[in-house]
Amino acid sequence: REDEEEKELRQRFMAPPVSGLRELRRRRRELRSRMELLIMETQAEVCRALAALDPGASFAVDSWERKEGGGGISCVLQDGEVFEKAGVNVSVVSGLLSEEAARQMRSRGKSLKAKDGKLPFCAMGVSSVIHPKNPHVPTMHFNYRYFEIEEADGTKQWWFGGGTDLTPTYLNEEDAIHFHKTLKEACDKHDLKLYPKYKKWCDDYFYIKHRGERRGIGGIFFDDVDSPSKEEVFQFVKSCAKAVVPCYIPIVKKHCHDSFTPEEKLWQQLRRGRYVEFNLVYDRGTKFGLLTPGSRIESILMSLPLTAR
Amino acid sequence: REDEEEKELRQRFMAPPVSGLRELRRRRRELRSRMELLIMETQAEVCRALAALDPGASFAVDSWERKEGGGGISCVLQDGEVFEKAGVNVSVVSGLLSEEAARQMRSRGKSLKAKDGKLPFCAMGVSSVIHPKNPHVPTMHFNYRYFEIEEADGTKQWWFGGGTDLTPTYLNEEDAIHFHKTLKEACDKHDLKLYPKYKKWCDDYFYIKHRGERRGIGGIFFDDVDSPSKEEVFQFVKSCAKAVVPCYIPIVKKHCHDSFTPEEKLWQQLRRGRYVEFNLVYDRGTKFGLLTPGSRIESILMSLPLTAR
Repeated sequence: REDEEEKELRQRFMAPPVSGLRELRRRRRELRSRMELLIMETQAEVCRALAALDPGASFAVDSWERKEGGGGISCVLQDGEVFEKAGVNVSVVSGLLSEEAARQMRSRGKSLKAKDGKLPFCAMGVSSVIHPKNPHVPTMHFNYRYFEIEEADGTKQWWFGGGTDLTPTYLNEEDAIHFHKTLKEACDKHDLKLYPKYKKWCDDYFYIKHRGERRGIGGIFFDDVDSPSKEEVFQFVKSCAKAVVPCYIPIVKKHCHDSFTPEEKLWQQLRRGRYVEFNLVYDRGTKFGLLTPGSRIESILMSLPLTAR
Repeated sequence: REDEEEKELRQRFMAPPVSGLRELRRRRRELRSRMELLIMETQAEVCRALAALDPGASFAVDSWERKEGGGGISCVLQDGEVFEKAGVNVSVVSGLLSEEAARQMRSRGKSLKAKDGKLPFCAMGVSSVIHPKNPHVPTMHFNYRYFEIEEADGTKQWWFGGGTDLTPTYLNEEDAIHFHKTLKEACDKHDLKLYPKYKKWCDDYFYIKHRGERRGIGGIFFDDVDSPSKEEVFQFVKSCAKAVVPCYIPIVKKHCHDSFTPEEKLWQQLRRGRYVEFNLVYDRGTKFGLLTPGSRIESILMSLPLTAR
């Protein structure tokens, strides 16, 4: 069944249809397809791990298509025993971007030369936010994404972005160490400079300026990464995506049956309010999503907790 | 006691101190002082009306000062019998603005000539959001404000802004008619063109673009109004401020003991979520406030409901 599902998904997203075995093989080797597969696998892997911890609840699976090309699948578990709200989304979209929109997409704001003012693009990613019920289980967010834009002269610009970060209601040092250590190990396999650099980027990004507070205890974050090579960045992103389950799931298992007081629940809800403030006021992805005509609001705002104070 | 309080407040905000009876009288006649008084009176009037409906609860009064000049008083009632959260804030601040900040302040984005890049300004206003507990009682928001900016050549630019609008969880046509009729009567005393113009402005402003939804059933809204004359606009703003209690309080009285189901409470909480989306993503006042260094976050975000889904 999984094979069939995957086949169906790949048929939906991979346009135009493949003709001939040689072409199929070539396509499969293409980074774009391998990233698409990684995205799908990550979604399935994380959903399976979450479902195993909350057997009474079930994911509402909702697939959508975009008129202009592509689509996505969102899996949302709401009001479970363990999770207040857990969403894992994938999307693969392509089409034409205005020069302005293309510039906004890249965090470095590099301008791209368009043909007739429009740039063919492809954007794909997996993103997830997990808000558990128990205030002793932290909220986790991750997102890994890939972009391609074709300039007027046929040059293809490409870049990766992503990250994984943790937002506890109550700090547990042991958990914080486990989380960061797992991410560090994933990064260190590729380059020892990556973890410190992307950890700092994460701390700087998830900052609620008007409060003078960080959103959580960080993790890693990077955007607009296009070196040393497409293959190497992809391998790095793959390691990060594979680290999601091992960095987070043991923490959920450890604390999901911890006892808690009504006051601790109240404090969690207040911290959820901060999460909403960050996401609606600062998060680049959310802002970009909300500004995109025809974007899917329920997917973009999936990151918000079910309830907040 | 009220007289004493008023005296203390006026001493706090009216800088420099008044010397001599003639100067005091002149000051009192100045529009700035009269607007300050209207703001204070409106706060007191609304707080008294709310407190009378929720006798078990009490307002937490919190006054604050701004290093750079001025200050404010916020009155917040939280978790009462009738009100989930009701806040009424006043602030009167003055100081120096950068040219950029001054341009952002005016919705028309008119640029102002500064001396040494800085413009002396004075901003004052009363603002309030009332979120009742019962889902059959609508949320109400109002805000009336006055700005003055002095240009390099000594010219004083001034303008008023404000509005009152209603956000029901469940539409009650009779209430909607009462609310709009009361506002219309306040406007019609000054110019028959005002109500239709400011009603439309309100509908256009309180629009959650990414949802394709209006925040509520509207009311009136205006910004950057500087004609026909300072005195005439002030008289209009005064009528609007005086209409707050009669347009809203009868609706609260009528419904605050209505019975409701858990499903209706849930729907209210979801509608509260929309309120948060509008305020954090679009509201100009909130955005401006959050971007202002040293601004008072708890006052700016007072408009958010206590809880949301």
